[in-house]
Amino acid sequence: MTYCLAITVGKGLIFATDSRTNAGVDQLSTYRKMFTFGTQGERVFVLLAAGNLATTQAVITRIERDIKQGVAPGLPGIADMEEAAEYVGQISAAQQKKHVTTAAGASFDASATFIMGGQVQGEDPRVYMIYPEGNHIQATEQTPYQQIGEIKYGKPILDRIIRRETSLEEAALCALVSMDSTMRSNATVGPPIDILIYEKDSFSLQRHFIFRENDPYLLELKAVWDAKLKAAFSELHRYNWNEPPPVSEE
Amino acid sequence: MTYCLAITVGKGLIFATDSRTNAGVDQLSTYRKMFTFGTQGERVFVLLAAGNLATTQAVITRIERDIKQGVAPGLPGIADMEEAAEYVGQISAAQQKKHVTTAAGASFDASATFIMGGQVQGEDPRVYMIYPEGNHIQATEQTPYQQIGEIKYGKPILDRIIRRETSLEEAALCALVSMDSTMRSNATVGPPIDILIYEKDSFSLQRHFIFRENDPYLLELKAVWDAKLKAAFSELHRYNWNEPPPVSEE
Repeated sequence: MTYCLAITVGKGLIFATDSRTNAGVDQLSTYRKMFTFGTQGERVFVLLAAGNLATTQAVITRIERDIKQGVAPGLPGIADMEEAAEYVGQISAAQQKKHVTTAAGASFDASATFIMGGQVQGEDPRVYMIYPEGNHIQATEQTPYQQIGEIKYGKPILDRIIRRETSLEEAALCALVSMDSTMRSNATVGPPIDILIYEKDSFSLQRHFIFRENDPYLLELKAVWDAKLKAAFSELHRYNWNEPPPVSEE
Repeated sequence: MTYCLAITVGKGLIFATDSRTNAGVDQLSTYRKMFTFGTQGERVFVLLAAGNLATTQAVITRIERDIKQGVAPGLPGIADMEEAAEYVGQISAAQQKKHVTTAAGASFDASATFIMGGQVQGEDPRVYMIYPEGNHIQATEQTPYQQIGEIKYGKPILDRIIRRETSLEEAALCALVSMDSTMRSNATVGPPIDILIYEKDSFSLQRHFIFRENDPYLLELKAVWDAKLKAAFSELHRYNWNEPPPVSEE
């Protein structure tokens, strides 16, 4: 599985991905799921990928080839983020269609889902979710984060912490905690963890952090967060479970 | 959706269910998902149900009718928990088969999943998960809890807290917290919350608690747990996100 997350706050965007790929029980390996494109100072794109690895790699390869060959539409010439999401969705749908035709009837899932975020000069930063069918939705103020893959374990902490006014650094830390909760409950999500902090109007993708399995901060975070949750639990006001309860039937 | 949970600790069993039923966006209502059977002092059974409501109600009705009519096999005469799980599985599979035949071709899911726990004199307390196909697995010491329905949001706290030596009261509180996390992230899981504490060898189902939506303890728990998690997060040692990171590429 995979866990990819994009958070939208007032000051910019946070992207986070794990790196574990699981193609059968004895084929556990590591692939990057965060890809960046753009022209420093003018336009930046961050693509997070979940789903069939052959499809996601084909999509990335195609985007890179279009950039290299100057093909239009391509990310360097595209007008806005919405057009970029449409472009990626079309490539993804076309790739999947190719393989569905070939493997007709077989139990095979070529589908892939993407989160694409970034900023094109003249617009605010934006985040889009691109479905396997190629269509997309935009994250809005009411949905401060988008997730793909193994999304549920890490959702509660996001719901509690992330607000429009949360700072980029706090949101990045929350992304790490969300990733930690997911890795703890699901063995198919694992490090290295990619975290990218994009500051609005910076048009720079330099704040990219990679936390490997034995990263001292990640290990400390894991231990301290676990200890703090246990402490918080132990401090909860106890219910009197011994009182004979008044069971009122509906 | 539904969230049902059974926890096995050394001193006994904890059962927890929500009560929300969602049969279409404008048909949100409340049904009990925890059912108890047994002969005080000799054998006790707790059944938690998720899935198609018509199927789960038909299964419960059939179990009750078998008890009333003294039909064998029925819960009052069954030899052990394993036989009880087999019995419930057979009824469930038969009920589903009936409706699958009738609605052939239609997009209709009659499936239901159950957790059955309890104790029959001469045995330790046991918990079984009963699949829609009617087969079952037993919870073991290595799997201290079983969940059905909307299981992921509430799993991380269980993984952190529940051990074989956890007390019944602590496990019941942890079940409530797990339920709270689930309700916060998924609108189709909701109160009243049923909690049942079964003490090993007591053969009594008296410690049954119902927490309604405006239950003062549930409201306090929700607020305090949220505040404690936010405080725990705010106390985490901050990462230096401003340091130009050494991005090492794979």
